[in-house]
Amino acid sequence: MSRTQLLEDPELRAFLPLLLVAWSDGDLEPSDRDALHAHVERMPWLRPAARLALASWLVPSSPPNAEEMAALRDALANVAGTLAPERRADLVSLGLSMAGDRADEDTKRALADLEAELGASSFATAALLRAAPAPTPTRTVTPSSFDVASARRLLDGPEVDIRERARAFLADPERRAYGLPVSDYRAKVTSWLSMLAKEGFGQYAYPGITTDRPDLGAFFATFETLAYGDLSLVVKLGVQFGLFGGSIYFLGTDAQRQKYLPAAARLELAGCFAMSEVGHGSDVQSLETEARWDAERRVFVVVTPSESARKDWIGGAAESARVATVFARLLAHGEDHGVHAFVVPIRDDAGTLKDGVRASDSGHKMGLNGVDNGRLWFDRVEVPEEALLARIAWMNADGRYESAIENPKHRFFTMLGTLVGGRVSVASGALSASKVALTIAIRYATTRRQFGPERGEELPLLAYPTHRRRLLPRLATAYVLSFAVASLQARFVAAQNAGKDGVPAETRDLEAAAAAIKAAASAHAVDTVAECRRACGGQGYLSVNRLPQIMDDVEVFTTFEGDNTVLLQLVAKGLLSGYKKRFDGVGFSTIVRHLMKKAHVVATEKNVIAVRRVDPEHLRDREFHLAAFRYREERLLETAALRLKKRIEKKHDAQATMLEVQEHLVALAWAHADRIALEAFDDALRGAKEAGTVDAATLAHLDTLGALHALTRIRDEAELFLSEGYVEPAKVSAIRKETTSLLDELAANAGAFVEAFGIPDACLAAPIAFMDPAHPRW
Amino acid sequence: MSRTQLLEDPELRAFLPLLLVAWSDGDLEPSDRDALHAHVERMPWLRPAARLALASWLVPSSPPNAEEMAALRDALANVAGTLAPERRADLVSLGLSMAGDRADEDTKRALADLEAELGASSFATAALLRAAPAPTPTRTVTPSSFDVASARRLLDGPEVDIRERARAFLADPERRAYGLPVSDYRAKVTSWLSMLAKEGFGQYAYPGITTDRPDLGAFFATFETLAYGDLSLVVKLGVQFGLFGGSIYFLGTDAQRQKYLPAAARLELAGCFAMSEVGHGSDVQSLETEARWDAERRVFVVVTPSESARKDWIGGAAESARVATVFARLLAHGEDHGVHAFVVPIRDDAGTLKDGVRASDSGHKMGLNGVDNGRLWFDRVEVPEEALLARIAWMNADGRYESAIENPKHRFFTMLGTLVGGRVSVASGALSASKVALTIAIRYATTRRQFGPERGEELPLLAYPTHRRRLLPRLATAYVLSFAVASLQARFVAAQNAGKDGVPAETRDLEAAAAAIKAAASAHAVDTVAECRRACGGQGYLSVNRLPQIMDDVEVFTTFEGDNTVLLQLVAKGLLSGYKKRFDGVGFSTIVRHLMKKAHVVATEKNVIAVRRVDPEHLRDREFHLAAFRYREERLLETAALRLKKRIEKKHDAQATMLEVQEHLVALAWAHADRIALEAFDDALRGAKEAGTVDAATLAHLDTLGALHALTRIRDEAELFLSEGYVEPAKVSAIRKETTSLLDELAANAGAFVEAFGIPDACLAAPIAFMDPAHPRW
Repeated sequence: MSRTQLLEDPELRAFLPLLLVAWSDGDLEPSDRDALHAHVERMPWLRPAARLALASWLVPSSPPNAEEMAALRDALANVAGTLAPERRADLVSLGLSMAGDRADEDTKRALADLEAELGASSFATAALLRAAPAPTPTRTVTPSSFDVASARRLLDGPEVDIRERARAFLADPERRAYGLPVSDYRAKVTSWLSMLAKEGFGQYAYPGITTDRPDLGAFFATFETLAYGDLSLVVKLGVQFGLFGGSIYFLGTDAQRQKYLPAAARLELAGCFAMSEVGHGSDVQSLETEARWDAERRVFVVVTPSESARKDWIGGAAESARVATVFARLLAHGEDHGVHAFVVPIRDDAGTLKDGVRASDSGHKMGLNGVDNGRLWFDRVEVPEEALLARIAWMNADGRYESAIENPKHRFFTMLGTLVGGRVSVASGALSASKVALTIAIRYATTRRQFGPERGEELPLLAYPTHRRRLLPRLATAYVLSFAVASLQARFVAAQNAGKDGVPAETRDLEAAAAAIKAAASAHAVDTVAECRRACGGQGYLSVNRLPQIMDDVEVFTTFEGDNTVLLQLVAKGLLSGYKKRFDGVGFSTIVRHLMKKAHVVATEKNVIAVRRVDPEHLRDREFHLAAFRYREERLLETAALRLKKRIEKKHDAQATMLEVQEHLVALAWAHADRIALEAFDDALRGAKEAGTVDAATLAHLDTLGALHALTRIRDEAELFLSEGYVEPAKVSAIRKETTSLLDELAANAGAFVEAFGIPDACLAAPIAFMDPAHPRW
Repeated sequence: MSRTQLLEDPELRAFLPLLLVAWSDGDLEPSDRDALHAHVERMPWLRPAARLALASWLVPSSPPNAEEMAALRDALANVAGTLAPERRADLVSLGLSMAGDRADEDTKRALADLEAELGASSFATAALLRAAPAPTPTRTVTPSSFDVASARRLLDGPEVDIRERARAFLADPERRAYGLPVSDYRAKVTSWLSMLAKEGFGQYAYPGITTDRPDLGAFFATFETLAYGDLSLVVKLGVQFGLFGGSIYFLGTDAQRQKYLPAAARLELAGCFAMSEVGHGSDVQSLETEARWDAERRVFVVVTPSESARKDWIGGAAESARVATVFARLLAHGEDHGVHAFVVPIRDDAGTLKDGVRASDSGHKMGLNGVDNGRLWFDRVEVPEEALLARIAWMNADGRYESAIENPKHRFFTMLGTLVGGRVSVASGALSASKVALTIAIRYATTRRQFGPERGEELPLLAYPTHRRRLLPRLATAYVLSFAVASLQARFVAAQNAGKDGVPAETRDLEAAAAAIKAAASAHAVDTVAECRRACGGQGYLSVNRLPQIMDDVEVFTTFEGDNTVLLQLVAKGLLSGYKKRFDGVGFSTIVRHLMKKAHVVATEKNVIAVRRVDPEHLRDREFHLAAFRYREERLLETAALRLKKRIEKKHDAQATMLEVQEHLVALAWAHADRIALEAFDDALRGAKEAGTVDAATLAHLDTLGALHALTRIRDEAELFLSEGYVEPAKVSAIRKETTSLLDELAANAGAFVEAFGIPDACLAAPIAFMDPAHPRW
């Protein structure tokens, strides 16, 4: 029997105002409703069926949905509108009016009792609770201790020795600079980079050549840890050892590796990575720079054919680089073989530009002014045949072009695969920056006091819910992304170990994951750092407190190494081509069948209990979170595929079609990133539990952080989940309340959570991060 | 008859797969469904009732809701799950299986026809359309021309002469600086401010004293327009003429006004506004600085009693200010009379600090480094009785404290009322900054090309939906907020004209509106400028293109002149106390009655047609937008009031209660800001229409911008609207599609929309804002 039919039952209509009150205020605890429910069951004069029906409206785990609430309000409004004002004066009259003439004496007495109680408190539920049993606690007990050391070990992962060495480098307060003239700042960053090279950090970039380690694990750990400090330094390090040296490592022959990499690792050969052109920022396939093959003399002539082909934003090109990996179209015998990489000397040892090479400074930037980004033009610069990085393509003895990869598109993407390691690092660096900001803001929020009760002590900022909501969900996301980044690093390392000569065997899936997590981590970082800045008020605006510089530096992480919007479209296209394989060559019926199967799955998952379950155990259950994240991704994938299929079959223009679904694709890619990040987090926690490396209380805290992250995301995407009926409105409301509970629980340990990041004090370097609550030093 | 009952009708079950397809892909146009609907009505063999029922599932304006879709999917999944695979092979089998043995020959034939058609196209709806009449266009014709000049006149408002003079000042390319050492930058800003003072802009700040104008209208116009240029200059201007001079104007006696203001307006007396203390950033009521009354000598002794009482972030205090308005507790005869303002000389003409005054620089900041923010300490600094700004309180002949306002709280808030003008200006300045960023990013987006069809021309960035979605809704919001700010300025001016001596009679409502719009405009600005930066990719990261500096400068607009989170809570508390007045002293029944009345209103508004109407006319109708915005605010207000009432009656601690509802209050205040902004926009457009000052085509464009803003906000708040059943999922989906149409329509005129802001070219000053699409100069 549907609950809305209850509205028609004359025996129960007297109680409808009560139901409205019970659900309208939007703020009853489950325990309140338990009490009401119990109260109703103690009304023996009602028909059992009627009593059950009435009780059915008061089951905490089964709140009325939007339709039922609307029906209830309609019924009440209709009756109330017809009543004379004096009959609307109290709850008894109102209820009896609702019931018409049918209310019996028992009902009248019950209502009068209610009204009498209500008269005392003016609020129904509070009064009803008096006779009720004490509410049973629904929340699990908060684990008492968070073991910072073991959490830190878990976060640090396998390369802990490298991380500690990088931390030691950062622990020197001299590793910080702000407000300096650009030239001084650049000099400082260069000197820091030399120190790092001397300490051997550069060696880790070339497994098998300059280090015995088999993979980039140590280099990833270096980059991620150093990103706690000056971001100009870490970008400069990434350019020199990662992009420049990496291009030779991944695209060069053994001879080329041996020739350049030992010097590159020691910074004796300063290089740059000349890919981006001003006219083709994100569109590498359209690069214009040419390398024209002179078959007779067996040389390439590198040419910048137009102003839009100018290399721009090239880190190191303005001043420091002596040699550049130049990405240019290989033209031979009148044929364009697409973009290839060439090692081109641009300056001599004294820093004088080589003949035919022009360079200029890209100019003052929002941040990262310790990096000398520059522009390059090539006016017929001749380089020998060996300049071509020749692992996948070369000029043969006859002077003709040859490649190990026949398909030009495949060849192009293999070459782009060299960027994967960079994206892994950018993701980790952005995340580290967000952790520094979170640490400063949370330390400040636990010591800085503002407002408070009249004549009482002022409260620390973190006592305020709006402040918790600003910082803690972002802290939770930082934790989840930590494991996503670690998983990405591990996958890259595994691919290297499975490949040959340190070159990953197959990077397609890895590329998609790296693109998704790079976008997610950089978007998280710019949002988080800005929110931390704002959470520190005027203090956060002072450069001495580090947040401004981090904000300005990390901002471009959303743009470089692949603009996020562009990357996300690549991710989505990858997902779609996987989806397409499932349906290739099948007709309409197959699609319908798939929809039906899907509908069946959804119907099972979205059963009445699941869409309305509002108990904390369920809301905190990672299975619920994972299912919701997977549902969202699958749903967006499916609808994207259908939209595309329909348009293609209607013979829409392919370009127009891709534009029409562009936003849908970007939404899909975000959903994908969210899902793989949460899965990585889940894997890591399960792994730690099985290995017994982290105690149960600490794991429970991590679990709670994961729940906060997941519920925050589900609320962010409430439009989708509500529209699809995946959750009911009452469940969204319960999620909101549960989030508040999570924030309350986590706030107490916020300081410990950021301590586990292991950021050296010198990197926090902000006076506001070191306030003594008893004796604030402003 | 409920549509879900259709699922039980054996005569119709064969068509259920068709319905699933019709609604599952989430991408049918209303015209597609019209065609399906027409097709079904041409099936004469069905019982009329059955035909009507089937047709009822295909009415474009009445899509199935989430429950109905779930029921449909369940029914399909249940039947499909029991079928042998071969029976699931095609739509005929599937439909017939659904119908069991009851399908007659006509139904079989109809399904076979469908299947045959579907076989050709593999997609149901496309095939069904063939026999259908041509879809009628549902969209109104796009107005062809947007009259930039008349739109600009509308935006400029009454003080157009002042705005043109401010524009002329900004038109000089010399009014720009970036990347300078701090001392050079400060000197430059100071010299610009002197020029402005010489040109008489400072005079506008003191109506009746230094100008014949009766109100601050001209000063508001000056501030808003100058904010197109260097924001350090506009902040310095605000500090000198607005905060410093304004405190004397609003809190001083006539004699004090005459003594200081003429010199302040000419910048012969450089001042600062020493309110904020480092320990009490947003909590002015807790300021610690003391002004101790010495009754015998009739002097005040100003003292900084602790380090947390240090004045900090005081614009001008580090170097330039000679005098400060110091906010300090007035202590007399052992009594604390609360915070009052005192004019305290801090430096002599040569810039040497006065005895007992210490000052230091607040240090390098994220932005606004052209302003010399500083710290001040007072070590027993003696000032004469006349230092007390004595419009509302003074020391009488007996040396006792007297005030025109008895209630100390009321007195305090009257004093804070002096900040209102500043908040109006901060709102307008933030908005101007966002307009500059939008202009640069939109001009770039219309000329910069990236990607495109293979072997085709690359497309301008604004051809990409994700790019439109980034920029155009924010542009629409800038338009809406322009009228909100103008309305605020007009209200302030009217209050001055209704008051005495240029002091607004009553500012309570104005304060709330100013706080709400200040928060809305500054939040809009920081979000918009950052998004514009990202939308320009690497170019947006270069200082030469202005966006970095605007981003760094405007960032603190969310913090200063009242932190947004703090302001929003004040707004919400004002709304609650208004709400409380409606219910003071009434009992539970009154609340229930109110809820019922409300339910009635909601039931009327949320009638079946409204919650499901998906036609463009409705979705673009400002009445729909206004109703939705009002519903959201009223709903949040009502639930906040109930939550508070319940807690207070349960005798919860007041402080704890306010914390528990803090987030709710902030959400309420945002809803309030959104509502009053849209109402101001609506008023302005109606006014322009009635006055005939703007032609119909231009008004239609502005209307479309308003619709884009409103629908974007409604989607942002979809969680609330869906949860409350105010809209159905299908309506949210229709809003999403309509938004896409709006973006498509508006993109063509984006350049004209930003041109109407009337920003001098010198302020855009970004190479990327001046690209010639045919001959890009990079």
